[in-house]
Amino acid sequence: MTDAKSRESMFTIEATPVKFGAGAAQDAGWEMARLGGRRLFVVVDPEVQRLGVADPVLASLRAAGMDLIVYSEVDTEPSLDALKRAVAAAQEAQPDAFVALGGGSTIDTAKISNLLVTHGGEIMDYVNPPVGGGRKPPSPLRPLLAIPTTAGSGAEATTVAILDLPDLKIKTGISHRYMRPAQAIVDPELSRTAPAAVIASAGLDVVCHAAESFLSRPYTTRDRPATPDDRPPYQGSNPVADLWSAQALRYGGQYLRRAVQDAGDLEARGFMMLSATMAGVGFGSAGVHIPHACAYPIAGLRHEYRDPGYPGSKVFVPHGFSVIVTSPAAFRFTFSADPAKHIRAAEFLTGEQYAPDDQEALPSALLQLMKDVGAPSGVAALGYREADIPELIDGAFKQQRLLAVAPRTPTHDDLQHIFRESMHNW
Amino acid sequence: MTDAKSRESMFTIEATPVKFGAGAAQDAGWEMARLGGRRLFVVVDPEVQRLGVADPVLASLRAAGMDLIVYSEVDTEPSLDALKRAVAAAQEAQPDAFVALGGGSTIDTAKISNLLVTHGGEIMDYVNPPVGGGRKPPSPLRPLLAIPTTAGSGAEATTVAILDLPDLKIKTGISHRYMRPAQAIVDPELSRTAPAAVIASAGLDVVCHAAESFLSRPYTTRDRPATPDDRPPYQGSNPVADLWSAQALRYGGQYLRRAVQDAGDLEARGFMMLSATMAGVGFGSAGVHIPHACAYPIAGLRHEYRDPGYPGSKVFVPHGFSVIVTSPAAFRFTFSADPAKHIRAAEFLTGEQYAPDDQEALPSALLQLMKDVGAPSGVAALGYREADIPELIDGAFKQQRLLAVAPRTPTHDDLQHIFRESMHNW
Ligand SMILES: [Zn+2]
Ligand SMILES: [Zn+2]
Repeated sequence: MTDAKSRESMFTIEATPVKFGAGAAQDAGWEMARLGGRRLFVVVDPEVQRLGVADPVLASLRAAGMDLIVYSEVDTEPSLDALKRAVAAAQEAQPDAFVALGGGSTIDTAKISNLLVTHGGEIMDYVNPPVGGGRKPPSPLRPLLAIPTTAGSGAEATTVAILDLPDLKIKTGISHRYMRPAQAIVDPELSRTAPAAVIASAGLDVVCHAAESFLSRPYTTRDRPATPDDRPPYQGSNPVADLWSAQALRYGGQYLRRAVQDAGDLEARGFMMLSATMAGVGFGSAGVHIPHACAYPIAGLRHEYRDPGYPGSKVFVPHGFSVIVTSPAAFRFTFSADPAKHIRAAEFLTGEQYAPDDQEALPSALLQLMKDVGAPSGVAALGYREADIPELIDGAFKQQRLLAVAPRTPTHDDLQHIFRESMHNW
Repeated sequence: MTDAKSRESMFTIEATPVKFGAGAAQDAGWEMARLGGRRLFVVVDPEVQRLGVADPVLASLRAAGMDLIVYSEVDTEPSLDALKRAVAAAQEAQPDAFVALGGGSTIDTAKISNLLVTHGGEIMDYVNPPVGGGRKPPSPLRPLLAIPTTAGSGAEATTVAILDLPDLKIKTGISHRYMRPAQAIVDPELSRTAPAAVIASAGLDVVCHAAESFLSRPYTTRDRPATPDDRPPYQGSNPVADLWSAQALRYGGQYLRRAVQDAGDLEARGFMMLSATMAGVGFGSAGVHIPHACAYPIAGLRHEYRDPGYPGSKVFVPHGFSVIVTSPAAFRFTFSADPAKHIRAAEFLTGEQYAPDDQEALPSALLQLMKDVGAPSGVAALGYREADIPELIDGAFKQQRLLAVAPRTPTHDDLQHIFRESMHNW
């Protein structure tokens, strides 16, 4: 289809309302009162609870006269079984509103619990086809107040929840605009206790969200959908998403190193939290593609990696590390689709200037950032060998929903090339 | 209060969900179905209706099976009486949702009608104190789908509605987050029939929204409110509002001249519409100040001006012209509060570079734009003489809610100086 009439001519953008700033979490009770909640299912990251970070938030909610059912059996990168347990607890509690206090996994657990409590059914009914039933919620969910404690997923700003299906060896998601939280509170004070490795992985995820969105194919290159219902959630880059993505890249380049080095640098951690939310708005509209498609099998196929900087005993690949390791090769591959925009992305990240044909500008900016914050050096460092590449390619290739917004569509061979280059980035 | 603890530490930002693009208005029926509306009170600008611009939108709503009560007795810059008539018609219609199709006056009329139909009472109950009762809506309003047809007010993105009180010789407003439309559709095709003078005035309003927001005092310089309820709607500049304002300035500089010169230049008119929405998000969070405060009496005191380029016979000062005429003097006055940010605003507008101490950079960029799009040369051209200045100052001085976010607070003498300088800008 090359007829201009058959091309997409519009894009949509919407953002979770955000209250941002040091001390903002103390307004949790006030915000929830405004949203009409009285009996709350509060999903809390266990580490956040253990460290006492949750206490002032829970106190604020209780001071506003609310009944709390606190649920903290949240898994990092939750499996279907872990989510089912959370849903069962939420259904038993029958809350009229939800609070999430933690990272992306916590917020996603609250989103899915809210979906099932509001509209019933089974989790798999709502999972994206072909894995799941693709059922859509018919009406808005109960209010969800999302309070992130790490600067990463941007889950407070997005309509998607990710889940791990270990039996199928894949990660997939549930996505609908009604899944977007009703309000986010982003409070830099809450990130004070996060370990450096958590900040590093989460921050590299933010940088990938922003770079992938900024470099996704323009929305005007997609075919026009037959009806508004057929418009995909990931629409491709557009002038509004670009604003958010560009600023998230600038903040990532300016503040991630400082945020990792010094837990007390609340200015840097604050700007990384804002960056995470901004990148969430950007990729919620434009979409992520090759590095995130490759990250699904990297995180899902094997669970042998154990990051020394992460709390707890779970063996898993932190999401941000699973994403960043293929990003230099991915953006080397996509460079030809829009060299000028790749150069701009690199300039946002470093503040430096590059020659217009410098294919290495963005990859080298990413590699330097990875080294500076202690990221694994590549796919090999995460526990894979050359012999695993075919299976990794298959897993990435299944993420056609993501690959569809890549500025240059990778073939099977292209993915092989990307994984090979990404085994050892240095 | 100079203690850092007593300073504001947080800001909020929220944006109307927007669908943007050529042909987007044809999704009106689909969007309204999603919002749950069946019986619609449709407020339409009479000129928009006369020119047939409304037809495809009304057809889309009817095709989705909706009942329409179309109300097109909308006044430009509506008075209290005009609004009361609209409210009475809406109360008689008892709609379950609202549509606004027109400029800022049309959208404001729909906002106020929705407020009164949903929560009852009188308009003056809700008007900002001290003029009105300051009553707040206790719960969300019915869904309002806002479809702007000019690139100006940004009313589709804001929580405020402006009304004219001729008896009191003032303009004032109603402001609450529940007044924000549930969805906006911004379709460049709809601006095709707008006359050049309407595009010019509306576009200069956009530029002022963006420049005033970008240059408003930083939110961290305000005193911390005693409770979250006391946080003002205009919070001062912040990193998120700045993103929107900066981009709106860039678009204004790049596209306004083209949009005025050629009604068929849908690219330029489209970017000006996007710019209007972006500036609306920006000033909805940060706020506008001196030029808008001065514009209230300029538009309200006398109704003798008749713009040759405006349709209809009403004698009034188009809002954008009332705002832009004092902006060069206003930003000359505020320059010392943050020279670097004034220079950046000028650079966004022109794409040129300026010396860091160039106080005339922004005023001269604005003056050139005014001349290029045929704006009146100053306050005198709008029908005022030197002898009117005391009354103009009194009117501007009443807008303390706006002046409170100026980066440098003007005294009575400062306002006199600004009005004097603005009588004849060239
Ligand atoms: Zn991610
Ligand atoms: Zn205005």
